[in-house]
Amino acid sequence: MFSEVRKRSRKAGQPPGTLTYTGRKNITPTVTVLSYNEHDFKEKNGAHLEECLLAQIPNATTTWINLEGLRDIELLKKLADLYHLHPLTVEDILNVGQRPKIEEFDHYIFVTLKVLFWNGKKKSFSINQLSLILGENFVLTFCEEPSILFDGIRERIRSGPNLGLQKKSTDYLTYRIIDTIVDNYFVVLEGLGDQIEKIEDLIVANPVKQTAKSLYRLKRQMLVLRKATWPTRDIVNHFFKLEGKIISTYTHVYFRDVYDHIAQAIDTIEMFRDMLSNMLDIYLSSLTNRMNEIIKVLTIFATIFMPITFIASIYGMNFHNMPELQWKWGYPMVLMGMVFVVILMIIYFRIKKWW
Amino acid sequence: MFSEVRKRSRKAGQPPGTLTYTGRKNITPTVTVLSYNEHDFKEKNGAHLEECLLAQIPNATTTWINLEGLRDIELLKKLADLYHLHPLTVEDILNVGQRPKIEEFDHYIFVTLKVLFWNGKKKSFSINQLSLILGENFVLTFCEEPSILFDGIRERIRSGPNLGLQKKSTDYLTYRIIDTIVDNYFVVLEGLGDQIEKIEDLIVANPVKQTAKSLYRLKRQMLVLRKATWPTRDIVNHFFKLEGKIISTYTHVYFRDVYDHIAQAIDTIEMFRDMLSNMLDIYLSSLTNRMNEIIKVLTIFATIFMPITFIASIYGMNFHNMPELQWKWGYPMVLMGMVFVVILMIIYFRIKKWW
Amino acid sequence: MFSEVRKRSRKAGQPPGTLTYTGRKNITPTVTVLSYNEHDFKEKNGAHLEECLLAQIPNATTTWINLEGLRDIELLKKLADLYHLHPLTVEDILNVGQRPKIEEFDHYIFVTLKVLFWNGKKKSFSINQLSLILGENFVLTFCEEPSILFDGIRERIRSGPNLGLQKKSTDYLTYRIIDTIVDNYFVVLEGLGDQIEKIEDLIVANPVKQTAKSLYRLKRQMLVLRKATWPTRDIVNHFFKLEGKIISTYTHVYFRDVYDHIAQAIDTIEMFRDMLSNMLDIYLSSLTNRMNEIIKVLTIFATIFMPITFIASIYGMNFHNMPELQWKWGYPMVLMGMVFVVILMIIYFRIKKWW
Amino acid sequence: MFSEVRKRSRKAGQPPGTLTYTGRKNITPTVTVLSYNEHDFKEKNGAHLEECLLAQIPNATTTWINLEGLRDIELLKKLADLYHLHPLTVEDILNVGQRPKIEEFDHYIFVTLKVLFWNGKKKSFSINQLSLILGENFVLTFCEEPSILFDGIRERIRSGPNLGLQKKSTDYLTYRIIDTIVDNYFVVLEGLGDQIEKIEDLIVANPVKQTAKSLYRLKRQMLVLRKATWPTRDIVNHFFKLEGKIISTYTHVYFRDVYDHIAQAIDTIEMFRDMLSNMLDIYLSSLTNRMNEIIKVLTIFATIFMPITFIASIYGMNFHNMPELQWKWGYPMVLMGMVFVVILMIIYFRIKKWW
Amino acid sequence: MFSEVRKRSRKAGQPPGTLTYTGRKNITPTVTVLSYNEHDFKEKNGAHLEECLLAQIPNATTTWINLEGLRDIELLKKLADLYHLHPLTVEDILNVGQRPKIEEFDHYIFVTLKVLFWNGKKKSFSINQLSLILGENFVLTFCEEPSILFDGIRERIRSGPNLGLQKKSTDYLTYRIIDTIVDNYFVVLEGLGDQIEKIEDLIVANPVKQTAKSLYRLKRQMLVLRKATWPTRDIVNHFFKLEGKIISTYTHVYFRDVYDHIAQAIDTIEMFRDMLSNMLDIYLSSLTNRMNEIIKVLTIFATIFMPITFIASIYGMNFHNMPELQWKWGYPMVLMGMVFVVILMIIYFRIKKWW
Repeated sequence: MFSEVRKRSRKAGQPPGTLTYTGRKNITPTVTVLSYNEHDFKEKNGAHLEECLLAQIPNATTTWINLEGLRDIELLKKLADLYHLHPLTVEDILNVGQRPKIEEFDHYIFVTLKVLFWNGKKKSFSINQLSLILGENFVLTFCEEPSILFDGIRERIRSGPNLGLQKKSTDYLTYRIIDTIVDNYFVVLEGLGDQIEKIEDLIVANPVKQTAKSLYRLKRQMLVLRKATWPTRDIVNHFFKLEGKIISTYTHVYFRDVYDHIAQAIDTIEMFRDMLSNMLDIYLSSLTNRMNEIIKVLTIFATIFMPITFIASIYGMNFHNMPELQWKWGYPMVLMGMVFVVILMIIYFRIKKWW
Repeated sequence: MFSEVRKRSRKAGQPPGTLTYTGRKNITPTVTVLSYNEHDFKEKNGAHLEECLLAQIPNATTTWINLEGLRDIELLKKLADLYHLHPLTVEDILNVGQRPKIEEFDHYIFVTLKVLFWNGKKKSFSINQLSLILGENFVLTFCEEPSILFDGIRERIRSGPNLGLQKKSTDYLTYRIIDTIVDNYFVVLEGLGDQIEKIEDLIVANPVKQTAKSLYRLKRQMLVLRKATWPTRDIVNHFFKLEGKIISTYTHVYFRDVYDHIAQAIDTIEMFRDMLSNMLDIYLSSLTNRMNEIIKVLTIFATIFMPITFIASIYGMNFHNMPELQWKWGYPMVLMGMVFVVILMIIYFRIKKWW
Repeated sequence: MFSEVRKRSRKAGQPPGTLTYTGRKNITPTVTVLSYNEHDFKEKNGAHLEECLLAQIPNATTTWINLEGLRDIELLKKLADLYHLHPLTVEDILNVGQRPKIEEFDHYIFVTLKVLFWNGKKKSFSINQLSLILGENFVLTFCEEPSILFDGIRERIRSGPNLGLQKKSTDYLTYRIIDTIVDNYFVVLEGLGDQIEKIEDLIVANPVKQTAKSLYRLKRQMLVLRKATWPTRDIVNHFFKLEGKIISTYTHVYFRDVYDHIAQAIDTIEMFRDMLSNMLDIYLSSLTNRMNEIIKVLTIFATIFMPITFIASIYGMNFHNMPELQWKWGYPMVLMGMVFVVILMIIYFRIKKWW
Repeated sequence: MFSEVRKRSRKAGQPPGTLTYTGRKNITPTVTVLSYNEHDFKEKNGAHLEECLLAQIPNATTTWINLEGLRDIELLKKLADLYHLHPLTVEDILNVGQRPKIEEFDHYIFVTLKVLFWNGKKKSFSINQLSLILGENFVLTFCEEPSILFDGIRERIRSGPNLGLQKKSTDYLTYRIIDTIVDNYFVVLEGLGDQIEKIEDLIVANPVKQTAKSLYRLKRQMLVLRKATWPTRDIVNHFFKLEGKIISTYTHVYFRDVYDHIAQAIDTIEMFRDMLSNMLDIYLSSLTNRMNEIIKVLTIFATIFMPITFIASIYGMNFHNMPELQWKWGYPMVLMGMVFVVILMIIYFRIKKWW
Repeated sequence: MFSEVRKRSRKAGQPPGTLTYTGRKNITPTVTVLSYNEHDFKEKNGAHLEECLLAQIPNATTTWINLEGLRDIELLKKLADLYHLHPLTVEDILNVGQRPKIEEFDHYIFVTLKVLFWNGKKKSFSINQLSLILGENFVLTFCEEPSILFDGIRERIRSGPNLGLQKKSTDYLTYRIIDTIVDNYFVVLEGLGDQIEKIEDLIVANPVKQTAKSLYRLKRQMLVLRKATWPTRDIVNHFFKLEGKIISTYTHVYFRDVYDHIAQAIDTIEMFRDMLSNMLDIYLSSLTNRMNEIIKVLTIFATIFMPITFIASIYGMNFHNMPELQWKWGYPMVLMGMVFVVILMIIYFRIKKWW
């Protein structure tokens, strides 16, 4: 979260057009080119752009170029020249601390999205930026890190014209990519939901310090999730309105579907946030309740032992003239007096319902 | 609640068009076909779609096919082919972790709603998804579980043309189905309201740990209710705007009425939420109040017994040269001194209004 | 509040058109017919509709029929037939758990409002539903209970053409009725404001358990008030937009005035709500402050008496070899030592500003 | 604040058109007439309207009549007849518990505003209503109390045509009056800001009961301020939209400026509100912190003296057979044991970082 | 923050058109004139306006006049006459307690922005006002203090036509200035983020009084930041809508980019605010948790030592007839009894999980 601000801050003071990559730099860039039309497809995977571009088939309706790892700015520049990308677009691709956004340019649409990966071991998610450029007959995607998220889509393209993607155009491929990303949000939400459910059971029964920590951690993650999802909804909504331009009527229905999914994800995030707030309230009340119990024990002990200890100390005084001390039944009578006081106190606590 | 997220998460990674049923699988699907026009009606109930479809009358203005239990995907596919449903519609019917939504297609309107059932024993409600498809002369409904909710509507159709539904078209039947669902929300709200009222009486008088638990449980249920009702309002509002297309002027007035009902349900939910928040605040103040009382008792006891026990321990010292010990009235004087201290303390507490 | 939900819930499961009265049933219905034009007026009051209707004058510009007590469904049906009311309107009149709303029908406007009565003894208000139907030359009003609220309006009509209402048409009468209801909200607000002012003085000075209860009660009443007033604003705003149709330019200015009044009522409710929230916060801080004071007293006593009691108990030990015990000034020295400890503690508390 | 509700409530039940003055009645009404055009001006000040009206110059572009003190309803009626004011306008002028509002009538615009005066001694502000009527060539203002607020404007008119107001028309005078009122809000905000700043310094360092009281008082004043300023923004915005009608293009720019000022005032109020909320939170945490400190002292004393007092009381027992008592070094050994216990406890507290 | 209100308040009561500088007065004004077109540029820096203006080149497409230090009102007036600025504009430039705003005049656009400077030592930021006037072929900027913020832009102009700014017109220069200011917000956000991150680690582990102070300070800074950034977004959005008028299509894309940046800054501020609120909640719960621990220690000690001290004081009584005292094993038996009591208590605490 803070790292995103830092990534962004690095850009401050630089003139626009300066290309600086603000993300992780230890990943070797890989290019994947997938070119297909209704009847045919070709695929090439490697480190050299030029080599991979040879994989294009002549009458391709769609060429999908995917770049994983963005540290090679030269490679990106070549691609930008090839597809006539605006300098700001190239800058935004490299600046991975972006807010999700959609921008229409003359001959393409530029989209920036956040990809979330659930880490089952750490019980948290990592966040990555994906930039997507949708043109008439090409789709370019740029990811910070390699991921297996889009393997399903590629598999479908490879599997031939009857099964799916190949007949449809670039807008449908874009839909599939965005849908995959949004669907993956639910995996993250499930992971977080599991954790919330676990804390929920503990919160009233046995509030411990650790609970507050977990609650805070989850609330923090919700904030990051929220920051990633809300703008995504606007992006999908924007696509929705582009029907007729670059989005065909056929694909329009599918974008409506993605919109519903992202709306559901946002609903769930807001509900989780509300639940976490409720849980914190209950946690606080449980803490106070616990304190009440502890203090009750203290008070019960003090109010029982103080009077009887006082009585004992009375008869521990060394006055010469204390007639009770000589009485034969003095000692048992005092003991009985003490028992009486104890019984009285117990009755008092019963009435106050402290016991 | 969490189960809904899980249902949704199961879909992640699957290509669109994959038909997976995410709900309960132990319910045997049953088809009910009701076909009627102004003069006549026919009804058939069974496990086989083809058999039931024979029950249609020739000039039916409305054919209502109701499917309860959705695990038989083949059956659903047949129905989808018959009525030319979009693949996404079929997917959404099977994916019962949907957000309530309305979608217009070329020749039908697709609606997804949440049906709530109040469980008087558990003092909570269960949630089910109902999908509805409204066409020119057909209405299809798909429920996760069988329910008696729509028995009233069926009875009305059976009872003949004079009494009601038969004269009117598919839009009126749709209105009746949605109205029944929304009306049922008030049964759930009454159940929750009863519980809130019960806690309300206890909250100031006698705050116990259990109260926090109940409050939390109710707040949680309100969140689920809210997630189900808010989108429903948008759905009814959408129907509202369809006047002239598939909704006749006659039925339009009725949809306005449903809109008022759902608005009232939402108002009530928001009021309940506010009340529960207020109750939690009062509960917290009651806890602190209670602690004040307990500590007051402790302080009163301590401040009374500490000084007099101290006096007693003074005269318990073994100094050889303590003249008071030899005094004839030493012992009674010390006792009186103690009484004096106690009276002083009591006066002090009276002034502080602790007693 | 809960009773409203219950009233509404009773309707669930019934087909539309079923006429069930959900309100109080022990009130005998009374009909009041007031018929007037610029020059003349006639009035009739009784239990029988037909009889009262005879009171109409031939060229009446306005006929105002007021029905108090709604248990006689037959009477209502007759009236509905006479003025061609939509079945849903009749249903809504009988269902007194409605949300305030306005509905335009072909030849009339249907309005449902909440009438609030301040009960000075109980220090709370009761809530009643008023339904109003505004037609070309008639105004119908339906109240759950008889009230003196509209006596002023009737008096004005009776007092002749020069003084007021008679010259103007049905829309002006409607304005007068709504204005009277909204004006009455301020009586309720004044009553609640008085109570808030009373608590305000106590809240910091002397927080008692009762305060929390009163705060909760007032917050709850604010919620009900809010639920009644917010939709009323929309209703008046709707009237506002009807200028030219059923609302004359003359009356339009008056509806603008009512709009300002209801806006002011809502402003005041929101301010009261904010004040009550602030008061609860202050109350909580006062409780903690009070606890601090109590614990301070306890701590001061304990930290003073514990050390000196310890010293006394030292010299209460029975060791044979305790040289101090034989010293001539042992006893006074020990006493002085105790005084010294006490002074030390007092200085400590002074520095800590506890005393 | 409550007085405003009461003022308003007095009107309830009265028919519209009843003229009742709801404000302070001990102020003698004074009329000030200022009539001017580009070349000339005349001024008259007195108790009689007719006399003052003689002061008008023949070709006056602007006549400004200012009435301070509103108890003379007859005087007001005369003025209303002279300028053909709507009965509702006259009613609203007298009803000083109004919400700020703007209303367009056929030949004039009616504005109601709140004038705030900062009282440096009481450290709070008083609130007054100002009604303004803007016509083609006249401006009427009605104030509850006399004030020196508009002396600057009058001075400027008197000072001749070159210096300012005289060349411009009624709309510019209206702008000047509203601008003066809005500017004065900042004087109130400065006064409140000074108080907030003072509390801010104390809140963490030394939270006292008085702080809560001051916070509550300031929060309450913010609510009143808010209620006065928010509608004022809408009023200025409305003026803004009247360009071309009664507001000239020349003056339009100036109203835009007032709009910015009122927006800034609202921003500041909202920020102050947020700050006060933050301060209350910090105050609460400081209270708890303080309690922690007090209890820590208590616990330290108790846990040190309880064990050693116990040891002393062991050797205060009167058993015949207690060998330690006869030991020569028994007494010093026990004392050393006590010192050891104390050191142990101190180490324990050091580890716990309580000391 | 308060100083801004004070700056503003100084203006109250003054007629419009009065020129008063409300900012810091110890800064000597400096004028910088930069005049350039596609092929050439000239620059002049000094205290005298006339001298600097000579630096303009004949066919300059853009003349940028930057004034740092505003106490010389005469200098400003000259500039205003030269460029025909509206009196209100000049007033607003001098009144540095303005709200960020944009105003369109006939031949120029007037913008007021807040420039934030992060002070790494004080760990806080200072706030300055920048006024900008954008005309056909001139850009005027007015700053309270000199800063190095725009050195980068100047450097770019000087570096010749191929590298950047010179080819483009005044709108692009305006974009560059606003972009630089907005980019600098991220430097401030990074500084604040670092501080939030530091507190975050401490908040659960070891809550100290200082934490509350830091939290309050950060929350306060967020409020100032918010007040500066929200209106800035509206300003950039306004520029956005001016496409075709004074903003060329070329620059339009760049303003869209600035809009995204300011939106991201606002998102981050809101997230920081939420985080700080969460942290305060957790801090409060940590305080209560800590109190629980302290009281637990007190209770454990008291409940262990009270009973055994009582037993000891029993046998310290001086009754003649106490048979136990003569028993040979009396003393060890009592000691063992005490050990038994202690063990019992420890078991009790183990069950309660206090230990």
